[in-house]
Amino acid sequence: MDFKTEFKPLTIQPQEIENKSFQIITEELGAHSFSEEQYPVVQRVIHASADFELGRSLVFHPKAIQAGTEAIRRGENIVADVQMVQVGISKERIRKYGGDVHVYISDPDVMEEAKRLNTTRAIVSMRKAIEETEGGIYAIGNAPTALLELIRLVKEGRAKPSLIIGMPVGFVSAAESKDQLLKLDVPFITNIGRKGGSTIVVAAVNALSLMADKQG
Amino acid sequence: MDFKTEFKPLTIQPQEIENKSFQIITEELGAHSFSEEQYPVVQRVIHASADFELGRSLVFHPKAIQAGTEAIRRGENIVADVQMVQVGISKERIRKYGGDVHVYISDPDVMEEAKRLNTTRAIVSMRKAIEETEGGIYAIGNAPTALLELIRLVKEGRAKPSLIIGMPVGFVSAAESKDQLLKLDVPFITNIGRKGGSTIVVAAVNALSLMADKQG
Repeated sequence: MDFKTEFKPLTIQPQEIENKSFQIITEELGAHSFSEEQYPVVQRVIHASADFELGRSLVFHPKAIQAGTEAIRRGENIVADVQMVQVGISKERIRKYGGDVHVYISDPDVMEEAKRLNTTRAIVSMRKAIEETEGGIYAIGNAPTALLELIRLVKEGRAKPSLIIGMPVGFVSAAESKDQLLKLDVPFITNIGRKGGSTIVVAAVNALSLMADKQG
Repeated sequence: MDFKTEFKPLTIQPQEIENKSFQIITEELGAHSFSEEQYPVVQRVIHASADFELGRSLVFHPKAIQAGTEAIRRGENIVADVQMVQVGISKERIRKYGGDVHVYISDPDVMEEAKRLNTTRAIVSMRKAIEETEGGIYAIGNAPTALLELIRLVKEGRAKPSLIIGMPVGFVSAAESKDQLLKLDVPFITNIGRKGGSTIVVAAVNALSLMADKQG
């Protein structure tokens, strides 16, 4: 192939770049109140955003890390709210334990039902997800309406997620949906405020699967 | 299907949420020095990040907006550095004019060649991209090495992108790669500093395709 041309060697290899980045993050973050088991998630969220304010805004349910790593090791599935989250999650370590990453928002039956109800596909996708998923880790980075609907389904006793990672970004409903999540008696990882997004949620899931894998 | 259950009406519909968000952004951003044609990109970047600092850090080559919208209307392809960027971009408005969104980083030949050269897949994917693409919009949100390699290929006269949207995130090489892009005599959209990411680049591309479509 033609693109195989002359090679200029990199001075830094990918693993070195990651190590150096993590070192910078630890130095610049300084004092914080996260636990040792929570810190890898904080570190990867800052790594994915270059945003210390966002990292500091993370809030963990006391059982969040344990619930997340155990769910992965039990082979439970991960439900993503949007495709960007689905493709961003490292599948290898999830599939190793028998789980997979699903997204329902573009399923034809979800799209059809959302149109019929004149509601968001995100809401309908959560209704489908809870029927297809035993326990599960819900990774919501984009749609506040998905998170609000999931919270409603939990309150009604119809959804029993092992962990909710809820960090939708936005100016309308995002912060409010996180406030509701903070009051829920289900393991969660979230953050205070408007910030968040698909890359942030992906970073949190990937941090968890690395921790789960190290326990083995 | 069972997930088609009782419907609780939303008080706000998706389009209303977006309109309200854009209104809040304009109010809170206040005075700025972006041009009228640049502002929709700034607005969507802030919408995707809830980060005014990031929005204010955007830098546009004087011909960036025109070059981007014209490339879309000519049916040129978009090259994404990673799959998250590829899936995030709204394809409908790109395909309407004959273009598509490509990503090469997981192609078997790219992976094989990166292994052989002991370099990053991101670098090799750019070498493949320039051979498969006439002009094109390069949307780089993740890998500084992809942006650095693309800049090198432009300097060597081997790549002639219509527009480079370069906003990789990170602590090592990201800011430096953007500094190099700022000095390049090719239309670009970038930002100053470490922040950026896939969702940010997707927001910029989607803003451009909306502008391109409105011209029609």
